[in-house]
Amino acid sequence: MSDLPKTCHIMEVGPRDGLQIEPKVLTVEEKLRLIDGLEKAGFTEIEAGSFVNPKAVPQMANTPEVFAGITPKPGVLYRALWLNAKGLERAVATPNVAVDGVLHLTASEVFVKRNTNRSIAETFEQLPSWIELYRTHGIPVDSMGVMAAFGCNFEGNVPPQRVVDIIARTRDIIAEHGGALKYVNLADTMGWAVPDGIKRLCGMVQERWPELELKLHLHDTRGMAMANALAGLEAGVAKYDGSIAGLGGCPFAGHKGAAGNICSEDLAFMCAEMGIDTGLDLDALIEVAALAEELVGRTVPGKVMKGGSLERIRHAVAS
Amino acid sequence: MSDLPKTCHIMEVGPRDGLQIEPKVLTVEEKLRLIDGLEKAGFTEIEAGSFVNPKAVPQMANTPEVFAGITPKPGVLYRALWLNAKGLERAVATPNVAVDGVLHLTASEVFVKRNTNRSIAETFEQLPSWIELYRTHGIPVDSMGVMAAFGCNFEGNVPPQRVVDIIARTRDIIAEHGGALKYVNLADTMGWAVPDGIKRLCGMVQERWPELELKLHLHDTRGMAMANALAGLEAGVAKYDGSIAGLGGCPFAGHKGAAGNICSEDLAFMCAEMGIDTGLDLDALIEVAALAEELVGRTVPGKVMKGGSLERIRHAVAS
Repeated sequence: MSDLPKTCHIMEVGPRDGLQIEPKVLTVEEKLRLIDGLEKAGFTEIEAGSFVNPKAVPQMANTPEVFAGITPKPGVLYRALWLNAKGLERAVATPNVAVDGVLHLTASEVFVKRNTNRSIAETFEQLPSWIELYRTHGIPVDSMGVMAAFGCNFEGNVPPQRVVDIIARTRDIIAEHGGALKYVNLADTMGWAVPDGIKRLCGMVQERWPELELKLHLHDTRGMAMANALAGLEAGVAKYDGSIAGLGGCPFAGHKGAAGNICSEDLAFMCAEMGIDTGLDLDALIEVAALAEELVGRTVPGKVMKGGSLERIRHAVAS
Repeated sequence: MSDLPKTCHIMEVGPRDGLQIEPKVLTVEEKLRLIDGLEKAGFTEIEAGSFVNPKAVPQMANTPEVFAGITPKPGVLYRALWLNAKGLERAVATPNVAVDGVLHLTASEVFVKRNTNRSIAETFEQLPSWIELYRTHGIPVDSMGVMAAFGCNFEGNVPPQRVVDIIARTRDIIAEHGGALKYVNLADTMGWAVPDGIKRLCGMVQERWPELELKLHLHDTRGMAMANALAGLEAGVAKYDGSIAGLGGCPFAGHKGAAGNICSEDLAFMCAEMGIDTGLDLDALIEVAALAEELVGRTVPGKVMKGGSLERIRHAVAS
């Protein structure tokens, strides 16, 4: 496993992706406690909320107050999500939001239509106006995300070549507008990826554009998240989204216990045990995972928070 | 990932390792329903119980009745566990038990002492009498298991060389008694393994004894089971123990939601999606996982049973 990266950056998405379908809506104070714990555990990039329709996602309605309540720590980026121009305008107007110039693409024709009422082609038509909108705020577009990059519950398989084509076209559009694509986030939005598919798609992208920095956004819907992260690491991918305590699952009846995002502290544990530096403190991660569980008020999927740190045992048996 | 095996054999251990710490003791009828479902899903090797002290493990007290109640299917092996001579005698005397000639070793000095009141050295001293005991029943010893092969909660790290030495010595003792070691089961009993450790130990064993057939017994205590299975598959290991619905966790207060064995159907899903044939039927697996959840009466860790089969979605969107 000599190809493993020496460091791995985990962006914590728990306060956004993790909480957005929880039945319990966390208060501003509760979210700030969670964010504070995440900072103490060493995260340097935290997605703290989203500027989307509060009627559609009531869990995120207090996002402006959450950002306003943050006392920003040096070196920490507080990220947010927006999916339309109004959302971006709100993000820009809110203190402490680290607005990145990101374009949101989707690799499933059916899903993008359901989600945004636009086709993939229509999404591309909108990219120049997005780039212009970012420009008016002085933000260079250098980043893109591809949702449903590995498959879609409404469409089935997503061929990797389609994702490569979407990246190519987005890269061209950014270049036509004087920018340069640097970052690509491949999202397994509905838990379709398996390890060989991760390696295949990441390999295709890396082979064509070795200069691009890849990130993986993994969901544990079918239990594959950690194996997919391992496949990503083996392919040299050194950036991941993760959710503290594995938040992001669906606790509703009929889906009780369904899995969420890849669990940040479990991923950090795997990295640490394999000698990959995440800059995170596992004991502090376990502590904030317990806080997350307390705040949402239900059993969460995280494993290391229950199984315990090996370092602690090593120290105990050595003394 | 060209080194992946073409087929993968999963032995189902749910009715034994999966149920042995459940607070609810399943009746003979319930266990037989579970075993029936497992057979229908395609398992050809099922660990159906254990001949251990019923006072210590009341969940397994009805093991003789369970075996007596099985209507054996052609091609299916019904396995059991025993840890002392009395247990083996009981297994041999019980109908439908496929008694294999297995020697149980442990790689942790502290754990083996706690578990059996013997040291590793004393365990080796007993091996000849075990081989003799098997011989009196006409069973050739060709198999061994190594518990705590990757680390131990009571001792800490277990150096892989120690495991190799244990295999070497056991292999020699079997050879001295006219037999030949063929099968080695490496058990991550307490969830200490991470993927590079799996590859390292499996690689060391395979390099020294290419003729040995390796199996991995993985626990998801710290969320590593599926990544460890992937590492095993990438190292060419084609045999795994698995537990339906991920049974085997600890549902007691303080450990609520703690993970169990690697989940059979999630592992079978990963294999199927990567083109590795397990001979198992995923829809039937999901059905028997739901039955397992119903029988134990609590939310189980299995993911695919909640996330659903991709093949079903592919068929639905194609039609």
